[in-house]
Amino acid sequence: MSITKMGVIGMATMGRNIAINIAKKGYKVYIYNRSKEKTNKIINQNLYKNIIPTYNLKEFIKSLSYPRIILIMIKSGNAIDKIIYELKNYLIIGDIIIDGGNTLYLDTIIREKYIYKIGINFIGAGISGGEEGALKGPSIMPGGNKISYKLISQLFKKVAAKINKNTCIKYIGPNGSGHYVKMVHNGIEYGDMQIIAESYLILKNILNLNNEELATIFKKWNKGDLNSYLIEITYYILRKRDEKTGKYLIDIILDIANQKGTGKWSSKNALDLCIPLPLITQSVFSRYFSYLKNERVNASKFLIAPPKKIIGNKISFIESVRRALYMSKITSYAQCFAQLKFASNKYFWNMNYEEISKIFSAGCIISAKLLKKISEAYNNMPNINNLLMAPYFQKLTSKFQSALREIVAFSVINGIPIPAFSSAINYYDSYRSKFLPANIIQAQRDYFGGHTYKRIDAIGNFHTNWV
Amino acid sequence: MSITKMGVIGMATMGRNIAINIAKKGYKVYIYNRSKEKTNKIINQNLYKNIIPTYNLKEFIKSLSYPRIILIMIKSGNAIDKIIYELKNYLIIGDIIIDGGNTLYLDTIIREKYIYKIGINFIGAGISGGEEGALKGPSIMPGGNKISYKLISQLFKKVAAKINKNTCIKYIGPNGSGHYVKMVHNGIEYGDMQIIAESYLILKNILNLNNEELATIFKKWNKGDLNSYLIEITYYILRKRDEKTGKYLIDIILDIANQKGTGKWSSKNALDLCIPLPLITQSVFSRYFSYLKNERVNASKFLIAPPKKIIGNKISFIESVRRALYMSKITSYAQCFAQLKFASNKYFWNMNYEEISKIFSAGCIISAKLLKKISEAYNNMPNINNLLMAPYFQKLTSKFQSALREIVAFSVINGIPIPAFSSAINYYDSYRSKFLPANIIQAQRDYFGGHTYKRIDAIGNFHTNWV
Repeated sequence: MSITKMGVIGMATMGRNIAINIAKKGYKVYIYNRSKEKTNKIINQNLYKNIIPTYNLKEFIKSLSYPRIILIMIKSGNAIDKIIYELKNYLIIGDIIIDGGNTLYLDTIIREKYIYKIGINFIGAGISGGEEGALKGPSIMPGGNKISYKLISQLFKKVAAKINKNTCIKYIGPNGSGHYVKMVHNGIEYGDMQIIAESYLILKNILNLNNEELATIFKKWNKGDLNSYLIEITYYILRKRDEKTGKYLIDIILDIANQKGTGKWSSKNALDLCIPLPLITQSVFSRYFSYLKNERVNASKFLIAPPKKIIGNKISFIESVRRALYMSKITSYAQCFAQLKFASNKYFWNMNYEEISKIFSAGCIISAKLLKKISEAYNNMPNINNLLMAPYFQKLTSKFQSALREIVAFSVINGIPIPAFSSAINYYDSYRSKFLPANIIQAQRDYFGGHTYKRIDAIGNFHTNWV
Repeated sequence: MSITKMGVIGMATMGRNIAINIAKKGYKVYIYNRSKEKTNKIINQNLYKNIIPTYNLKEFIKSLSYPRIILIMIKSGNAIDKIIYELKNYLIIGDIIIDGGNTLYLDTIIREKYIYKIGINFIGAGISGGEEGALKGPSIMPGGNKISYKLISQLFKKVAAKINKNTCIKYIGPNGSGHYVKMVHNGIEYGDMQIIAESYLILKNILNLNNEELATIFKKWNKGDLNSYLIEITYYILRKRDEKTGKYLIDIILDIANQKGTGKWSSKNALDLCIPLPLITQSVFSRYFSYLKNERVNASKFLIAPPKKIIGNKISFIESVRRALYMSKITSYAQCFAQLKFASNKYFWNMNYEEISKIFSAGCIISAKLLKKISEAYNNMPNINNLLMAPYFQKLTSKFQSALREIVAFSVINGIPIPAFSSAINYYDSYRSKFLPANIIQAQRDYFGGHTYKRIDAIGNFHTNWV
């Protein structure tokens, strides 16, 4: 069965760009948007002749051939349920609905079950790459019914990003697994952005570097292990001039970083699954701290900074920051892939981490050279519990840990907030701790609540009459 | 209207002990438990003659006088809904149900609304103090209908803990506010336990102190600013001998610390409210790390520790740990009281933080000398945004911050995981940062997602064409 047409619902930036991307690959794309203005705007721009507007759902569906393939690109939440409810009236057994938004995986699990029951195939596909990725080739993480995925895979492979011989799409697993991987991707993105921001803060505050100097450092870093989309754009950002004032734009942008909630989802999910995810969570909290601008400005007048220590060699300090950033990045990915594995086991998703790291390698926001090393690690040891245990990362972290320790210690002494860097070294040290002081905590719990404890020399639960 | 009788449902440890506590105050207490074995056990122990067993709900309700006052002490969750559903058949307008369990405040908000509609009063009361507190006097945080609270306040005041002239109960506010305060109390408890455990780890690892020496330190600390229930029991825990082996029990207890989920609730709530709560969250993650015992043991063989640095003066190092612990404790309480304030504003609870810190001062697990300072701070400045800004704490943190910096830096250099201590100094430094590097993050978001940014020199949302 050869697909020649498909439908896209929702003409906000991501929907529009992915529609254009699909159209460019030779497919007829029927588009529909709740308000006709956005549809008309696209048509008037004459972007691509095989993009065909429709102005109600009935017309939209009638334009498509069986099996109808409908990609929904609208805001996640109730709006998805509403559109599915409306679509249901027109669809028949075998049709395929794809939710390409940032939907919470738990919602996708529920929707897939419900929709599958009435004979319609549902795919929850995480799509990453921002505006540009959607247009030029995003990375795509589809979860759902495998048979229907096969039907659309050819089309989506043409749309997805390519790097070397790798196409950044791969069937992830059943029901909510695709959206889950996208959520974890976004968690990683929050972490990456925070540790870059912390590196910038340290270099700026300790070495008093100007934006050109900072830009040069990021440019240089982008040529090595740290090579990634986010490091690359940071270089461009640091050099960008404000059109109005001629000043460096970065110095005019207010230090408040917003969020759309997917980082928060990652953290809440880790809390629910009972697995540690400190770096991502600290990154989310750092965004919350950024909101408290007025309080911070006020507090800065009253809460005293420590006396500044000076550093020795500037060049070696910059190299230590680079190593600290890379080491933090590795522990962040280790946390997030451990989260994937835990969820995959819990939900029977049977995820392939090597493939997932390949999907992440291009097209998406977190695309980075590091992911090649990660996919190699999983190729060698597919069932490893934690990436830190892969020989390559064992070796690398044993070499780089001292730089991260040095930078964290130095920043803490100097009063520079580096919550994500700190959490990275603490994650590393917690993970490699045969003994953690949780015996004290469990003893306290047994003392005040009779919650019992386990022993190192016997099996079972024990309670002591402490008083 | 004078209350002489009441009913308690649920005869697990907490329910049993609070029933005895109430009975001792001269009330007739009718008890009911789903399985009659627990009820009979209590009766057979002949603990208190004015505890009267009942064996079905009808009998239970008939024994009480109007308005019937029923305290539910069962596991939170669906079981509460089930028992309310059954009780409903027997209750009439004006009766009072009190949920004294660790219920999620959102559930209490829903239940209160529903039950109030059918004319029955519902109080969600947080009760803290563990087994001993329940028996001898817990601290109680009731939320719900104020008029019905007044009816039961006399009884509950007799039951609650007393310290100096303070009785550890006070009406908190409408609907879920009481259970919310209990949740935050438990978050604080997680933090307190973690920072005590980290202090223990540092002292044990760096100074190689034995349990007697460690106990002596905690005993001494308990006489000063750090005076609290948890520090006190840590001293007893460290000295306790195992009956079987004669060894110190703490060395035999496995380093896995369990949890019942209320710390996790605090963290998830902070993530939802968009407020930073790093110390509690790191404490929750530390418990999750403790679960990974097998992975940790394995990792300890492969992930290399840094070379140990030696310390200078032992006495002054111990004093630095004490100061680091106290400073961490202060930032933890600052985070949690900021969380209370944010929630109180959001839900229109009109909380009184001075009174809440007084409730926390005795009977409950977190009872500590520090809470007196906190209640004084709120007495002086009831509307302060963050406790760190109270003059007393400003002064104290400016003095103690260097010790926390020193201990964090030293532990990080030495490979000792201290996630909560680290998060404390990072919270402090973030809060007092006029500038945070969130400008980089927001610029990145605008770059890849067109999410716009705010400027320092103009009002509105701006977008740049970066490329």
